[in-house]
Order: sequence, then C-alpha cells, then structure tokens
Amino acid sequence: MAPVKNGRLIFNEIPEGFPEPGKTTVYDESETIDLENAPLNGGFLVKVLVLSNDPYLRFNMRDPNVESYSPAFHIGQPIVNYGVGVVLRSENKEVKAGQYVYGVFPFVQYFIRPALDDFRILENNEGLPWSVYVGVAGMPGQTAFLAWKEFARAKAGETVFVTAASGPVGSFVCQLAKADGLKIVASAGTDEKCAFVKSLGADVVFNYKTTKTEALLAREGPIDVFWDNVGGESLDAALKHAAKHARFLECGAITGYNGQAAPVHNMGNVFAKEIHLYGFLVFTLLEDHADEFYAEVPARIAKGEFKFIEDIKKGLEWAGHAIYEVQAGKNHGKSVIEVATE
Amino acid sequence: MAPVKNGRLIFNEIPEGFPEPGKTTVYDESETIDLENAPLNGGFLVKVLVLSNDPYLRFNMRDPNVESYSPAFHIGQPIVNYGVGVVLRSENKEVKAGQYVYGVFPFVQYFIRPALDDFRILENNEGLPWSVYVGVAGMPGQTAFLAWKEFARAKAGETVFVTAASGPVGSFVCQLAKADGLKIVASAGTDEKCAFVKSLGADVVFNYKTTKTEALLAREGPIDVFWDNVGGESLDAALKHAAKHARFLECGAITGYNGQAAPVHNMGNVFAKEIHLYGFLVFTLLEDHADEFYAEVPARIAKGEFKFIEDIKKGLEWAGHAIYEVQAGKNHGKSVIEVATE
Repeated sequence: MAPVKNGRLIFNEIPEGFPEPGKTTVYDESETIDLENAPLNGGFLVKVLVLSNDPYLRFNMRDPNVESYSPAFHIGQPIVNYGVGVVLRSENKEVKAGQYVYGVFPFVQYFIRPALDDFRILENNEGLPWSVYVGVAGMPGQTAFLAWKEFARAKAGETVFVTAASGPVGSFVCQLAKADGLKIVASAGTDEKCAFVKSLGADVVFNYKTTKTEALLAREGPIDVFWDNVGGESLDAALKHAAKHARFLECGAITGYNGQAAPVHNMGNVFAKEIHLYGFLVFTLLEDHADEFYAEVPARIAKGEFKFIEDIKKGLEWAGHAIYEVQAGKNHGKSVIEVATE
Repeated sequence: MAPVKNGRLIFNEIPEGFPEPGKTTVYDESETIDLENAPLNGGFLVKVLVLSNDPYLRFNMRDPNVESYSPAFHIGQPIVNYGVGVVLRSENKEVKAGQYVYGVFPFVQYFIRPALDDFRILENNEGLPWSVYVGVAGMPGQTAFLAWKEFARAKAGETVFVTAASGPVGSFVCQLAKADGLKIVASAGTDEKCAFVKSLGADVVFNYKTTKTEALLAREGPIDVFWDNVGGESLDAALKHAAKHARFLECGAITGYNGQAAPVHNMGNVFAKEIHLYGFLVFTLLEDHADEFYAEVPARIAKGEFKFIEDIKKGLEWAGHAIYEVQAGKNHGKSVIEVATE
C-alpha cells in the first residue's frame, strides 16, 4: 500500500488572547506514513480515533520557560492531549494489534510509539463509544469523580454551587451531588446549557451572563461546597456567600486562561468562616485511584446512571476551531475531535 | 469595706478605620462595687488580673447585624476578650475563692458571673506569670500550636513563610517550624521586630515595609508552608511563589480589618500547584485539643523551650491605646493589659 497522508495539528505560535485556528494552530498535511512498512523499532503504530479538547490546553500554549503543572507545547510540533486509538501493528509485547489504547497523544492521524509507558489498554467490555473514554470515562470524568470523593465531604441537605456546570466536569459533579442529596445551584453561559444542567436535576440554574452570581448566591446560599471551574468573580462571590466550614474544590480557573482573571477581594472569609480550599490536579488523584475509577465508572455509564452530552467535531482539520470554541465557551457538551472511525 | 471603683473600657462607637481611644472606646469609672457584700446569687466574683489584646478584636467592632465568627461588641457595654482573674468570693461549687480562672472576660476590674461554663480553672503548677496564660499559653499560643499540628504537614528541609512573625502567634510558629527542621522566611514591620524573629532562629527575616515580599519570595522560595496572619499583598505573593502541594494556614487577615485588604490576583495558582488553603479558628481546634495543649505547652514554656516577648500596658485605662497600637502594628510582642497585680 502506498503511503497515506498523516495530518497533524501544529502549535504555530503563542497566542495573546484566545487561540486562533490558522494562527495559533495550523493544520498540516505535508507528512505521509506507510502504514504497512514504517519501521516500528520494537514499538507500535497507533491509528488515532478520538482526541480530547479540554480547557487546560490553553495553559500549555505558553512560553516554555514558564513552568507549570503540564509541559508547554513546542512550536512547530503537534498539540498533545488525551486520545483513544487502535493499534495497527506492534512489535512490543505489552500491546497487540487490534487493542485500544488511551493516553496523551499527539494531534495526528497516526503515530509510532516505542513503549506503552503510561498508556492504558482499554477493554471497553461495555461497548461504549470511544469518545466517552476521553469524556465522562476519561480525564474530565476522573476529575469530577475522584475529587468529589476526596474533598467534598458532602452531606445530604447541604448546598453546592457548581460553575461551568454544563461542561463534562461540571455536569458530572451535578449528578454526583444529586446522588448525595445536596441542593444544587449551578451556572452556565447560555440558556441552552442551563436547560441541560436543569435536566440533570440541579435545583437552581442560572445564566451567569444575565444574572449576577453574587446576587443569586445571596438568595440561594450560603454554600457548603463550591466546585470552581472558572475563578475570578464567581470565586469571589462564593467566598462572600460561603457557609461556615465550606469546602472549595479548586478545579480550574478558565476566566484567567485567556487573559487576567478578576481579582479576588473576599479572601478574609477564608479564616473567618474556616473555609478549606483544595487545589487539585487529576494526575495526582489518578496515582492511587485509576483502577478504582475504571472498575466502577464505565459500567455505571453503560447502565445510564450518568448523563452527558458531547460536542463532536469530525476531522482533525477542525481541531483548531474546536480549541477556540472551548476557550470562548462556545461549545455545548464535552468537546471531542473524531479523527477517524475504525 | 466601702465600695470601690470598678473601671470599665466601654465600646463607644463603630470605628471607620483604626479604633481611637476616647472615641471608639472610652474608659469609664462611674461604677462601683462592694467586694465584700455584692450579692453573688449562686455565682462568683472575679478580680481581673490580665486581659488579652488581640488583632481580631477589630472584627467585633462592627454593626451587630453583620454576622461573623465572633459576636459583635455592644455599644455602651465593655469590650470583651480573654483574661485571667482570681476568684475573690464564690457561692458556686465548681470554683473556690483563691482559684484562678481563664476565659472571655469583660474589660472591667471586677465582675460577677453566675456559672463557670467555658471558663477554665488554671492550676499553673509551673508558676508562670499570668500574662503568659493569655499569650503563648493562651489563645494565641493555642492558635499556633494546634493549627501547626493539624494543617502544616511540615517536613524537614521544606520552606515556611511566616507573616507578622514577631507577634505571639507568628513567633510561636517560627519556633515550631524550627523544631521541625524547616527553612524559615519571616516578615515583620520594624527592624526591632525583625531582630527578635531572627533571634528565634528564623533563616531569612525581612521588614516588609522596606523589602518587597514578592521579590524576596522570588529569591528565597518556593514556599511549602505559608502561615498567613495578614492577607492581601503577601498572600498574593505567597500564591505566586508557592511550591507544588503547598499548605496555606489562613490564620488571619489584619490588612483587611481596618480597611480593604489588597485584592488577590494569583488564585489561579491554587489548582495549578495543588495548593490547599486551610481557614481555621482556634475555637474549633480547642473543642478536641484543649486538654492536650494545657498538658504540654505550659510545662515546655517553663522549661524555656519557647521564647516570647510581651508588651504589657499597666492599668485598664490604657487598654484603648493598646488596642489601637495592635491594629496599627505599633506594639512589640504580645499585647497584654495588666489590670491588677494580686
């Protein structure tokens, strides 16, 4: 068989504000790969099926001299993030052709990898769509499920406030909180997103663009648990309307990724109300809890216990657009790039 | 014996900025008490020996309609805070004349109380001065000792940053950190205070009025543990220069008590560095750990294990001045009002 095109989404330049497709990222088809004969050198060849598009990618589009929790992208190299692929050929005894693998992938159609390392072989006995394994059964689902268990100390009758509640993390958190018997106050950025969150059983859902978070929490608070995906103004409002001994799960701060987050004025409440704020990264939680997650969550998703929505872009050439949309809050549901069907 | 004067420090009006003696608080000598014959109605009569003057008092000088962790002072009534006194007479079987009691006292020379309730009888087998029981062996010492044990998770070789490090809480924290083998970076507001902190074994001590905290931490950080007494700018700098998995012990925020604390811009570091911030109040920690504290700490103070300095004002009539000084950072050492010697 003749070599085929191997499309790639290249990180082209560090953005100032939002990442622009064609500028921040460029889709390139100049490379080819011979799927049958490309030398594996003891490794294996992966055909990429789905790639995840998550808010934190913006963090990696930075000067590589600035340290952070996740390595900076290299200019001229593909974007990287979680994906699922099928192994086409293997010279590695850890993995066989026909198996499915999950891990941090380059944004390409095909790649050769020397060893399994921290890739995980997915059994998928439940027959879930592969996109689910980068969403509610992947990193975002792990974030919600493991951190809620670790830090929320939720008690029935308490009130939780969830921001970015229609996203893959927030919408899972709402369902976990519902199962624990909490009153759920949740915000999202469009009426359509709010309707989805409402359908998950949230008690009070508001569009933060048309309703002031601070005024809403003054009425519906005080809040015992805060799931913070956004930082800035809503964090400030949550501090002001926190209950005594509130737990804040600091998951992200997207309002600060593409510019400066609003400053926080109410930190004096932290000691006065004995609030605990838990910053966490899913990578750390996974060190001890990955097997527990995979043993429990995919099966419960298959049973329909957790609802979710996906926003799927078909074709790697649209990945740059999808990345922009997530940063600008224009997606609706977990953003996934479908690179290929099998 | 004829009735004697019973001086009182009255809360006169809610201050705008710093509390002014003669305006915010007024010393009043219009009341008298007959120490031998005043009816006890089953209670006991206390002669006040020492009263504590702590930063958090400013919090209670507020509109009583604003809820907070500690009840607002009542206009026209005495200020209240921790004190030690000797029981002159008692009709209550829980306490005898000649015993010493510790608890939240009104700022008066004598008072009658119906029951012991949350007062504690002090044995003082070590013969420490009573002032110590409102300082390093009282609420400030309990704050430092119990919270450090509960939240710092200190490991030898780590770096701690302590603000207001010459105060009764901060100076105790420095000594606990030293005993745990940490590198200690500490700030205070005068060169004299800095010299005292240096004498406790702190490694890097700076005057935050002449050295920028942010620049200092850039050089001496990153910090693993932050003991925050002040909030505002130094909290912001500590977030910026925190190490991965840093623990922030949020003890107070004096920069916000007499005005608006500086806003915090670096909250995005909380999730990115997996920082945990623990707001706490000593009252909660004491619920389970008071006996442990009294069994251990006074004896160790008597052995000279913990150094401390006191700033003692003699005479209740100077309490209003002492309160102003603590709020303005003009005291040097734990501020105590000596109301009477025995």
